[in-house]
Amino acid sequence: MTVSVGIIMGSQSDWATMKEAALILDELGIAYEAKIVSAHRTPDRLWDYGRAAVSRGLKVIIAGAGGAAHLPGMMASKTRVPVIGVPVQTKALSGVDSLYSILQMPKGFPVATMAIGSAGAANAGLMAAGILAVSDPAVAERLDAWRAALSASIPEEPKDD
Amino acid sequence: MTVSVGIIMGSQSDWATMKEAALILDELGIAYEAKIVSAHRTPDRLWDYGRAAVSRGLKVIIAGAGGAAHLPGMMASKTRVPVIGVPVQTKALSGVDSLYSILQMPKGFPVATMAIGSAGAANAGLMAAGILAVSDPAVAERLDAWRAALSASIPEEPKDD
Amino acid sequence: MTVSVGIIMGSQSDWATMKEAALILDELGIAYEAKIVSAHRTPDRLWDYGRAAVSRGLKVIIAGAGGAAHLPGMMASKTRVPVIGVPVQTKALSGVDSLYSILQMPKGFPVATMAIGSAGAANAGLMAAGILAVSDPAVAERLDAWRAALSASIPEEPKDD
Amino acid sequence: MTVSVGIIMGSQSDWATMKEAALILDELGIAYEAKIVSAHRTPDRLWDYGRAAVSRGLKVIIAGAGGAAHLPGMMASKTRVPVIGVPVQTKALSGVDSLYSILQMPKGFPVATMAIGSAGAANAGLMAAGILAVSDPAVAERLDAWRAALSASIPEEPKDD
Amino acid sequence: MTVSVGIIMGSQSDWATMKEAALILDELGIAYEAKIVSAHRTPDRLWDYGRAAVSRGLKVIIAGAGGAAHLPGMMASKTRVPVIGVPVQTKALSGVDSLYSILQMPKGFPVATMAIGSAGAANAGLMAAGILAVSDPAVAERLDAWRAALSASIPEEPKDD
Amino acid sequence: MTVSVGIIMGSQSDWATMKEAALILDELGIAYEAKIVSAHRTPDRLWDYGRAAVSRGLKVIIAGAGGAAHLPGMMASKTRVPVIGVPVQTKALSGVDSLYSILQMPKGFPVATMAIGSAGAANAGLMAAGILAVSDPAVAERLDAWRAALSASIPEEPKDD
Amino acid sequence: MTVSVGIIMGSQSDWATMKEAALILDELGIAYEAKIVSAHRTPDRLWDYGRAAVSRGLKVIIAGAGGAAHLPGMMASKTRVPVIGVPVQTKALSGVDSLYSILQMPKGFPVATMAIGSAGAANAGLMAAGILAVSDPAVAERLDAWRAALSASIPEEPKDD
Amino acid sequence: MTVSVGIIMGSQSDWATMKEAALILDELGIAYEAKIVSAHRTPDRLWDYGRAAVSRGLKVIIAGAGGAAHLPGMMASKTRVPVIGVPVQTKALSGVDSLYSILQMPKGFPVATMAIGSAGAANAGLMAAGILAVSDPAVAERLDAWRAALSASIPEEPKDD
Repeated sequence: MTVSVGIIMGSQSDWATMKEAALILDELGIAYEAKIVSAHRTPDRLWDYGRAAVSRGLKVIIAGAGGAAHLPGMMASKTRVPVIGVPVQTKALSGVDSLYSILQMPKGFPVATMAIGSAGAANAGLMAAGILAVSDPAVAERLDAWRAALSASIPEEPKDD
Repeated sequence: MTVSVGIIMGSQSDWATMKEAALILDELGIAYEAKIVSAHRTPDRLWDYGRAAVSRGLKVIIAGAGGAAHLPGMMASKTRVPVIGVPVQTKALSGVDSLYSILQMPKGFPVATMAIGSAGAANAGLMAAGILAVSDPAVAERLDAWRAALSASIPEEPKDD
Repeated sequence: MTVSVGIIMGSQSDWATMKEAALILDELGIAYEAKIVSAHRTPDRLWDYGRAAVSRGLKVIIAGAGGAAHLPGMMASKTRVPVIGVPVQTKALSGVDSLYSILQMPKGFPVATMAIGSAGAANAGLMAAGILAVSDPAVAERLDAWRAALSASIPEEPKDD
Repeated sequence: MTVSVGIIMGSQSDWATMKEAALILDELGIAYEAKIVSAHRTPDRLWDYGRAAVSRGLKVIIAGAGGAAHLPGMMASKTRVPVIGVPVQTKALSGVDSLYSILQMPKGFPVATMAIGSAGAANAGLMAAGILAVSDPAVAERLDAWRAALSASIPEEPKDD
Repeated sequence: MTVSVGIIMGSQSDWATMKEAALILDELGIAYEAKIVSAHRTPDRLWDYGRAAVSRGLKVIIAGAGGAAHLPGMMASKTRVPVIGVPVQTKALSGVDSLYSILQMPKGFPVATMAIGSAGAANAGLMAAGILAVSDPAVAERLDAWRAALSASIPEEPKDD
Repeated sequence: MTVSVGIIMGSQSDWATMKEAALILDELGIAYEAKIVSAHRTPDRLWDYGRAAVSRGLKVIIAGAGGAAHLPGMMASKTRVPVIGVPVQTKALSGVDSLYSILQMPKGFPVATMAIGSAGAANAGLMAAGILAVSDPAVAERLDAWRAALSASIPEEPKDD
Repeated sequence: MTVSVGIIMGSQSDWATMKEAALILDELGIAYEAKIVSAHRTPDRLWDYGRAAVSRGLKVIIAGAGGAAHLPGMMASKTRVPVIGVPVQTKALSGVDSLYSILQMPKGFPVATMAIGSAGAANAGLMAAGILAVSDPAVAERLDAWRAALSASIPEEPKDD
Repeated sequence: MTVSVGIIMGSQSDWATMKEAALILDELGIAYEAKIVSAHRTPDRLWDYGRAAVSRGLKVIIAGAGGAAHLPGMMASKTRVPVIGVPVQTKALSGVDSLYSILQMPKGFPVATMAIGSAGAANAGLMAAGILAVSDPAVAERLDAWRAALSASIPEEPKDD
């Protein structure tokens, strides 16, 4: 299977959040790679990753980062491959710093921003699938099934623990 | 030209913001439709739009709304077509209410959230183009050109007015 | 006893908060039902619940949700039965996301928003009772008694643990 | 027509916002009174208003205030008549101060909080109507018609100014 | 010793914070009373306390409350005795709700607002002492000594635990 | 008349706000002085003012400042004379920066913080009067009259402009 | 005069803010250059500027940007020359987005963040001077004089306009 | 080794955060002193420290404080030696109070503000090194090596715990 989705993150500590994206892609049978690409500590790695994204056949990039989270936006500046950004929750500011750093991109370089934290990472996987599904009927079918199963799993009434 | 992008918004007043998305799609030669679909005032319209999105051939939906902005997320619940959300700036809360209502989706139903206001709407158009470019080389080429032109337009030095 | 109050919530995890509303209704002898109605995962359930609310004899709906909390507002869009919204506290944004998504409804579709979290859920039960009390003297009497007992329970002086 | 709704506000300057509630009640043919009741400047007026609310036949109280907005919550403490609170927008804090002062009531004394500003005031009128409609079929019918007319007024497409 | 300072609070749970004020007054030899006066649950107690404050010889009132914290401001409305407000920290909003409810008083009824939480409660005791010291040289002397001792207690260098 | 209240502010631009305090003191017949004392630009002036406050007979100091508003807290560090702080509204952060800089004093050095902006400045004047009234029956009487007149000025009903 | 300070900014629109830094450097006789270096639109320009900063003899870099303001942090990642960041005020979020994007850098790559807007830009010029003054007695002398003149310019009393 | 960097903090409790700065300076072989200098409790110590900073040969001052964090800005007012400010995280407001008190300095007195908490303290050490490196090639070399080692330490892929 060719890798069509790149999951990148600013540091090892982001993996606890970002693996939710990987789990979704696993469930949907979508091939991906997971890499640490730090905007500040390995800027040249970011450069190279962005420059090669199209030629390597990447179709979507999921980028997670926390604090002054420059990775998603800088990646969006380096490639036209759609970038999905995941704001990682932070200690002092709860991820609002991550969110604003990812979301508030100027005209020209969108980042598809997800919810703060784990739910956002899982949704990044689903958004990646949705983008692939535009031109891949097999992914579309699996995504439809995933969504139907989620809806079917909801009980009618809450129960006490 | 088949319509591949739907631009929907909660009310007429959102159009001042959302037409930035339309302008970008015009520049990139991408066919779109613009509709008012109010989550609260025309919920059945929302339902019908979402249910028919795949069969009508829509590939991306751009949804803008302000305040308790339920349109993007409810649309994401009704269709697997990728939904890009634009938080429209509001009077009292500057669009932070719109942002949180659009962004903080639970696992299962991602909305690709853009920056608050006009820059976000323009970027929604570019993100839609990026998604189409995954499987449409002609759009990819035009998007690359658009990005290159933007970069080329930046002067070396600021000048006084 | 006919069910006059519907307590609905977006997911099982909201029940820890929302059962405070149920407890109050129990104390006041008001019949209710508790249902999981997810705006995003079971939108058709939401539709059906809203459409049937008046004919089923529901007089008040209490709706709790967290994050991009669309349930209360969407329910308010589907029925004229008064909707009381409870913002469930969230991990990253402490329920401010829930609050803004519930509170900031556009003209036409009010949601009677309560405080974030458990106190808000309990108060939703009391507000429901207050609404029923407008036309039900027996509920009014029990509510008056409940309020009087609360006031009478307050000691004159604080004491050390 | 007996007055069934009391619209009270902290000062003359709140009337610019609160008359949106009055306009809705006018449209729905619901009798109301509009009074200035300042929690801080006329506390005894607040006391008397609250104490007499039930015996005067008031069924709903709409209370608007800004800043340290104590009027809605104090009124809720004095009467079991449902109190709908409208946070008036303020200069420095945009009404977030009003909102928190109204919303965050402790268990025992709910205030049905509306959106900040004019939309919230209009919705207070609609919420009052919804509460009356629980036991008044004529109001219910007019409210249904009002809602239907609003939905019917939404055009299919946005238009340029 | 005549009681010159009243420490009042909205509920028993506030005492954990408010006893910091009492401790300071103990250290400074200032007589006080500590009472639970809930603005919402015991409004008449608030009324009576405020009305009698001057005649009872109270010179300063310290009022602590959390959430929609109406106690300090309502007390300031009922008596000209200076009211010092302590915003108690809250679960969802960290006491910002308490702060805005206490601080943002309209022209006419100031509340001397302290920092959120325990430091604020201790400082309320010191501010009360400072106010008494204006006309009581003995308190002034003890307050000067307290301040000098605090300054003298600061080591030159930090040390590892 | 001896000057008993010092109104100090960080810069000339704060005077537009702080003269509201002066106006109140004028109305109440309380002698004051108004000085510019910049914590950062004239720190020695701050030092001297604080050191001489008691010996000069000042009984209350009202200090207004904006942004990183260090004047009130630093003054509270230099004298036991009660310091009332007024957060001046700012351009980017609406005075929340001023507020936090003034309010969040550590244990030992309270600042009696008022509302942001003009209402806060007026209330600083009233709080100063309330403090003086503790030991000055003439001020107490004038303050009571001022408060009574304010309450008496409130009309029963709002009127359209 | 060799250029020792580089003033860079994300776009022409930032110049209205950033020229305050240039004015200060003019007043202090410090040579500088002013360049537009957009992190997203001209990332290679950023790369080249950072890579050459030391060899070109730059001693301080002042970087201003707004929204998802990645320029200061990315520059800090590319060179050890001290980077001073200026958060430019923005429309929806008042520059809090700019601030968090600049300030919240991870361990390894500090940005010396200034106040939001014009005051911050002027202070960036003064901080640059302070850094140069560490090893340049002539700059130190001029900076001391500038500071002394500022302090000397403060009048004793405010005056009405 | 002459001490070239002063690390000062408002209280012993800040040391848990501020020793991160000391650790970095240790790693880079830069001599420093660590002192407790409380703006409010030991204002004269602050005065003396600031006045003597230049003559004692200090080249950079790192100042950490929490809450109404006046130490960095007051120090910047007393000396032209560059002051780096570290906002210490606080209980109720997560350090946003510290941040605004440090950051929002008026024109004339910049504080080089770092991220909230430990990362900010470590970065204060690195920023100090960067400032010294402007005129000290040995420090520059060690800083370059430190940065290179950090970059080299980043693995290519995340791994599960």
